[in-house]
Amino acid sequence: MATGGRLAAFRRTAARSGTLWASTVAVDRVAAVGMQRLWKPVRVPAARLGDQLAQVFRAWGMSEAHVDVTVERVLYADLRGIDSHGCCMLPFYRQQLRDGIITPRPSIVVVRESGSTALVDGGGGLGHVAASESMARAIEKAREGGVGVVAVRDSGHFGAAGAYAALAAEAGMIGIATCTTPTPAVVPTFGRQARLGTNPLAFAAPARQHRPFLLDMATSTASLGKLIERWRQGLAVPAGWAVNSAGAPMTNGYRAAAARHLTPLGGTPEGASYKGYGLAVAMEILAGVLTGVGIEPSADGRRPRVGQFFLALDPGRFGDGDFGERLDELVTWLRDTPPLTTGRDVQVAGDPERLVLAERERLGIPLARAVVEDLREVAADAGVTFLLDGTL
Amino acid sequence: MATGGRLAAFRRTAARSGTLWASTVAVDRVAAVGMQRLWKPVRVPAARLGDQLAQVFRAWGMSEAHVDVTVERVLYADLRGIDSHGCCMLPFYRQQLRDGIITPRPSIVVVRESGSTALVDGGGGLGHVAASESMARAIEKAREGGVGVVAVRDSGHFGAAGAYAALAAEAGMIGIATCTTPTPAVVPTFGRQARLGTNPLAFAAPARQHRPFLLDMATSTASLGKLIERWRQGLAVPAGWAVNSAGAPMTNGYRAAAARHLTPLGGTPEGASYKGYGLAVAMEILAGVLTGVGIEPSADGRRPRVGQFFLALDPGRFGDGDFGERLDELVTWLRDTPPLTTGRDVQVAGDPERLVLAERERLGIPLARAVVEDLREVAADAGVTFLLDGTL
Repeated sequence: MATGGRLAAFRRTAARSGTLWASTVAVDRVAAVGMQRLWKPVRVPAARLGDQLAQVFRAWGMSEAHVDVTVERVLYADLRGIDSHGCCMLPFYRQQLRDGIITPRPSIVVVRESGSTALVDGGGGLGHVAASESMARAIEKAREGGVGVVAVRDSGHFGAAGAYAALAAEAGMIGIATCTTPTPAVVPTFGRQARLGTNPLAFAAPARQHRPFLLDMATSTASLGKLIERWRQGLAVPAGWAVNSAGAPMTNGYRAAAARHLTPLGGTPEGASYKGYGLAVAMEILAGVLTGVGIEPSADGRRPRVGQFFLALDPGRFGDGDFGERLDELVTWLRDTPPLTTGRDVQVAGDPERLVLAERERLGIPLARAVVEDLREVAADAGVTFLLDGTL
Repeated sequence: MATGGRLAAFRRTAARSGTLWASTVAVDRVAAVGMQRLWKPVRVPAARLGDQLAQVFRAWGMSEAHVDVTVERVLYADLRGIDSHGCCMLPFYRQQLRDGIITPRPSIVVVRESGSTALVDGGGGLGHVAASESMARAIEKAREGGVGVVAVRDSGHFGAAGAYAALAAEAGMIGIATCTTPTPAVVPTFGRQARLGTNPLAFAAPARQHRPFLLDMATSTASLGKLIERWRQGLAVPAGWAVNSAGAPMTNGYRAAAARHLTPLGGTPEGASYKGYGLAVAMEILAGVLTGVGIEPSADGRRPRVGQFFLALDPGRFGDGDFGERLDELVTWLRDTPPLTTGRDVQVAGDPERLVLAERERLGIPLARAVVEDLREVAADAGVTFLLDGTL
């Protein structure tokens, strides 16, 4: 009974959360039936997963153009190990469609535009297309005037922020991307209630010989996904990741994820968590205050709409010579740092994701069985063939 | 002898450091003569300190216009408790002048300019004037096209980064400022050698009822100044602030500051120090790679020149209604967070500095005796009257 009550509470939280839908549902299922094997991943080729996603999006009524872009952005996350922001979000997206919070055929329009800036209305759709188009617009403006800033209001979840910063780097630009998140999950320093989202900060820059520098980070110490991952692995959550309402560390990843009381980067006041807190506010200002999303959640504890922010900067307008070559020099300088442990080389942001990408392109994307079963339900509900049986 | 050897090594490090000159010299002096009373601060009215600074700068050969701006920026730090970036830097500036690293009469020129961007050459002067002019230029561009980005090469120390972000907020703009720092002090995650500066990130945004949001943070967990402060107070440095070359925490603030082995924000890999490391690199890209400062220190362990980066963004180009009112709403929402401890309210970035400012405007700026004595030497050396005797 006690377990049942906790699970019900957890399910309610998950239903509100707007992130990690599948993961939290899956935690619920594992806790309920004790089937740890549900977590054993199966490998799915990216192309097949893409086909599955495309069929579902089409069945939901999305246009072909929107299907293509959305599939690409979802797979971006799944291919790079950003598992909390890829296909596991589909049950959440479906729920949002059902609840009328998002529409499959948004009208994405430029509300106002001037010189190097624009405000776009996402039309209440999923965020992937509005975000992609807006970063493309920022890049275009940067080509013209050196820098472009495009903010989006009335949008939805856009997957991994890094995907959009990466678009800028692919176009030879420095790119910055951030967004608001619907449900508070981060506790301000010296507070005892979550008041901010995990507001990501993505920053990319193009090198020449090396792959782009690509930082994609939540401004909290850890993401909700990492708490659940710890719980799955039977490990305690380290002190400094999540706190209870008395400010004490929470070590149970399952409870900590349900409580949604993450610390800002820095972890504790002594560890300078006011810096992570300040960064989270800065991202909220760019993606939320600039666009007018508003900060207070409505009665259900969520903000229905997401705001997004994209900046592109043309590095060719500044120093002499080639920016990419200079960035190569910095990347090499950092990679050449003598390592603490032989064999564990110093990396730069973007390296871990690229290692995962190479592996997953070769071996397929590992999906937890729970995620596969969620996708089976989503496919059945959409009336499309399920393609993920008999995977690798 | 052992102490003498350590002090000599420390003095060499301090001479190289380019930051915290006076603090480290003062640590040296205290350690040598055991005169803890040197640390007892005396209060100096800001106007008198400003007069003293102006006389010295004039004697160094700076133009009246440069004197005015530089004094204002130096006092900005001293008035707000950013004590490591204010008048205590004067002995270091004098040394740089003597060594011919900086010139008192720099020719600050726009190297290239296009649309919303510009590259400025700081002419090898102190950085305060080039930085102020460049943020002013970015603001002007933001007034015209919505956003402006101005980067500066061949510049010097500019004091507190927040001073320049604040200029943007005073002009109704969102402002971002960062710079390179001359000597490596931050160890990349999984490395065992400092490869990056404490590269600051300053972000400001104008509210209406409230004062501006103003984040001004080093991307390291703690600054060198905080290590020395701990040592002064007889306190151990917390684990996660500084590491030795085996990656173990250093707890002696004096040794840790000399070693210049700070951790990136996050402190440890488990605490997500790769995020602070990534942020430090992002700032290095904006202020260093963009401008062409180069990353490798020269034979003396320093990079002689500093690069700077300034962005101004007009918030009036985006959401409907008044940006300042929307930011007020966010600030109120955060300040209203239920506090962990009764009486210790949740603050927003900029609040602590403003409390100090109010106190120091009323009571004067508390200067450590060691800093006063350093300034006495600087004044004597410049051949100007010493004004800080008989202080409050």
